[in-house]
Amino acid sequence: MSASSWNDLPPDALRTLRDRFGERLTTSAAIRHDHGKSEARHETHPPDAVIFPRSTDEVVSVVQFCAAHRVPLVPYGAGTSVEGNAAAVRGGISLDMSEMNQVLSVNQGDFDCTVQAGVRRQQLNTHLRDMGLFFPIDPGADATIGGMASTRASGTNAVRYGTMRDAVLALRVVTADGREVLTSRGARKSAAGYDLTRLFVGAEGTLGVITEVTLRLHGVPEAISSAVCGFATLEGAVETVVHTIQLGIPIARVEFLDDVQMRAVNRWSKTDYPEVTTLFFEFHGSPRSVEEQAQTVAALAADNGGGDFQWSANAEDRSRLWKARHEAYYAALALRPGSIGWPTDVCVPISALAECIRATKADLEKASMPAPIVGHVGDGNFHVVFVVDPNNPAELREAETINHALIERALAMNGTCTGEHGIGLGKMDWLERELGDAVPLMRSIKQALDPQNIMNPGKIFRNLG
Amino acid sequence: MSASSWNDLPPDALRTLRDRFGERLTTSAAIRHDHGKSEARHETHPPDAVIFPRSTDEVVSVVQFCAAHRVPLVPYGAGTSVEGNAAAVRGGISLDMSEMNQVLSVNQGDFDCTVQAGVRRQQLNTHLRDMGLFFPIDPGADATIGGMASTRASGTNAVRYGTMRDAVLALRVVTADGREVLTSRGARKSAAGYDLTRLFVGAEGTLGVITEVTLRLHGVPEAISSAVCGFATLEGAVETVVHTIQLGIPIARVEFLDDVQMRAVNRWSKTDYPEVTTLFFEFHGSPRSVEEQAQTVAALAADNGGGDFQWSANAEDRSRLWKARHEAYYAALALRPGSIGWPTDVCVPISALAECIRATKADLEKASMPAPIVGHVGDGNFHVVFVVDPNNPAELREAETINHALIERALAMNGTCTGEHGIGLGKMDWLERELGDAVPLMRSIKQALDPQNIMNPGKIFRNLG
Repeated sequence: MSASSWNDLPPDALRTLRDRFGERLTTSAAIRHDHGKSEARHETHPPDAVIFPRSTDEVVSVVQFCAAHRVPLVPYGAGTSVEGNAAAVRGGISLDMSEMNQVLSVNQGDFDCTVQAGVRRQQLNTHLRDMGLFFPIDPGADATIGGMASTRASGTNAVRYGTMRDAVLALRVVTADGREVLTSRGARKSAAGYDLTRLFVGAEGTLGVITEVTLRLHGVPEAISSAVCGFATLEGAVETVVHTIQLGIPIARVEFLDDVQMRAVNRWSKTDYPEVTTLFFEFHGSPRSVEEQAQTVAALAADNGGGDFQWSANAEDRSRLWKARHEAYYAALALRPGSIGWPTDVCVPISALAECIRATKADLEKASMPAPIVGHVGDGNFHVVFVVDPNNPAELREAETINHALIERALAMNGTCTGEHGIGLGKMDWLERELGDAVPLMRSIKQALDPQNIMNPGKIFRNLG
Repeated sequence: MSASSWNDLPPDALRTLRDRFGERLTTSAAIRHDHGKSEARHETHPPDAVIFPRSTDEVVSVVQFCAAHRVPLVPYGAGTSVEGNAAAVRGGISLDMSEMNQVLSVNQGDFDCTVQAGVRRQQLNTHLRDMGLFFPIDPGADATIGGMASTRASGTNAVRYGTMRDAVLALRVVTADGREVLTSRGARKSAAGYDLTRLFVGAEGTLGVITEVTLRLHGVPEAISSAVCGFATLEGAVETVVHTIQLGIPIARVEFLDDVQMRAVNRWSKTDYPEVTTLFFEFHGSPRSVEEQAQTVAALAADNGGGDFQWSANAEDRSRLWKARHEAYYAALALRPGSIGWPTDVCVPISALAECIRATKADLEKASMPAPIVGHVGDGNFHVVFVVDPNNPAELREAETINHALIERALAMNGTCTGEHGIGLGKMDWLERELGDAVPLMRSIKQALDPQNIMNPGKIFRNLG
């Protein structure tokens, strides 16, 4: 905690807070632990207390308390981030947004909706189902919309529909001085002042608490089809993707899974795909366009050593495919019971993707632990999940070495150290390497908007005070 | 000037600057006047000097000079902005970017390019022509890419291809302390730190000087067709657009011109369109898709009182159409020789567009000056150009009153006071009205990044010191 320990806080102030939140303020060890732990490799950093607000006004009161007493505040969504983004490294309050889970409005005519930050993406799509609309951003996990905005999430549909940068039209945020701010109006575009919406998207809660999000929605496509195709070589799979993108085919999803990941998928999801480098595809459009897209991609795949192109317009086939893809992380962990996942992600220009994956695969083949590659390759973005024994320091060091080589490679190719996981605790040094002179600018903004450094301190930047 | 007048600057410092730039530093009254005048209604505010840099290093040296002596610095592109965005209201140096006009690289495989800020959009498209690529953002004027980034420009193609917010992948900027900063790497997406790229896009030069821009490009569509259709009623034209958007038709352009504008177009461009509310369309895609899109829109138009739907796949017809559209502003001014243009623009949610245009047209029909409506209506964005006598104060007041009513109406509909012109000098009070509590946040960022207020001072914010 910045100022003093939780127990040294003025009893009156603490009593006022407790009176306001009742049982929605807890210091239970189990709940604190739960809010401090990481989905992935990072250490657990429990907060001193967890508060479950139900309104922006309640968030304002918590932030004002934190500002007055210099207590760290960590916004918490579904806990599905993987770079320790919501760990309470300096204690303080974890603000669990799960009770702010109302869809506030859907404007069918404008293809947008406004939701509280704790709404989860699957809940939103269930809500939208009968309106002919959907929210396309899909990072795999059933994350909250606020968390997805904060980490600038993207995932499988981003190749066609963009990332949270594109999906978020406006935000309601509570700033570090406890003021409620709406970042934008409802028009589809505006040239009025600085783009605060995009500043808060991806700020990982370090500039304020997002309490409401206005999202761009899309019409459910008339036709959707999916396909799976295994490849004789890794290069063939990647080249198929690169050609698909370069031809301008408006593919909705194209996911890369290497042979290790396919073996994991088959075991976990009881499927019997060939255990070779594989692409999962999804096509959206008119029935005719979907068929045309699939035919074009099938021809590209065949040219690049693709095997049987299993195309299907069947919803059940599609759902089985994406369930297998979404569970890829857990499937990978199950390759080695007792292990933990150390996921990393990079993103490179598409022209460099084949070489980046090839060189990475060569490193991984020499590794002592399983480490599948999966990726949203249409964007040039892919993940490695090191499946490591948390009690084996040599193995952890080995993963770290390969991870470093991977990020160095991506940066050398003019790529980024993270396509969608964010900086969190895991990539602070890499941010400096990647953007160098731009980081002091980011720090200036952080210091201007949160001079006491109470908003998710210890993330994104090292040594901020 | 913030510190002292130009003539009071230390002679040594000034001599060093003059030595560096030679004839590329000028204090000629004609050139200063030219850089201080507005394309539209705003008063001329000449700078004390104009400098024509040729490299980022030269920009760094000018900014360092300005920072050392607290001299205002106004980045200047093609001078085509309409809200006085580049006027030197506090004197100082106008930094004319026209000699930084090199296309630095085009990456065909990645669909992107990097250009110096003074490259103009038509020059870029000429450069790209033989590569099968194009840069879609088209605000009408042949603006510079740096200026377009700074005002978050959009224009006729934004309904399909987005605005400069979407088109800019990375920027090289010189910050107010004279440091060179690259805001992002070349990957298509990234979750690494704050989105500085989007912060500088639309900042109107108040946070730094943009010297290089990396842009997303698109493949030239296989087929392009255009269409023109006049309507019996204004409502019918707008409803056609709203239905087109709501059906998800990927229309590339849809432009609204009211009867007054069509009369002006016919006179100026020697065309013989019916002088009624008219839509100009453009369709991009495969030959079959382009035809399908046009057929669907033609049916919508017919349902909404549209007349003859003049569809053409002919490049000459298309070029004549868009030339007429691009010259709409000059055509409007020619309605009344000796007059000046007072353009304004708002953007509203598409569901409110019909009512917003209807009510605005009712105001304009009562006005004493011609004031055509033209708009990028697929985004909910439209312009009014008041064609006013600059020497008639009553008329200027009348235009101001109608403009106020228009913006009030747009804000009441959850819209914005400017869809694409920016705040500049003209809409500072409206920014406060529109975003209220968000403006102090913007000011904090401005103060953090430009504590001496040397970067384009007197724009966007009132009373910044």
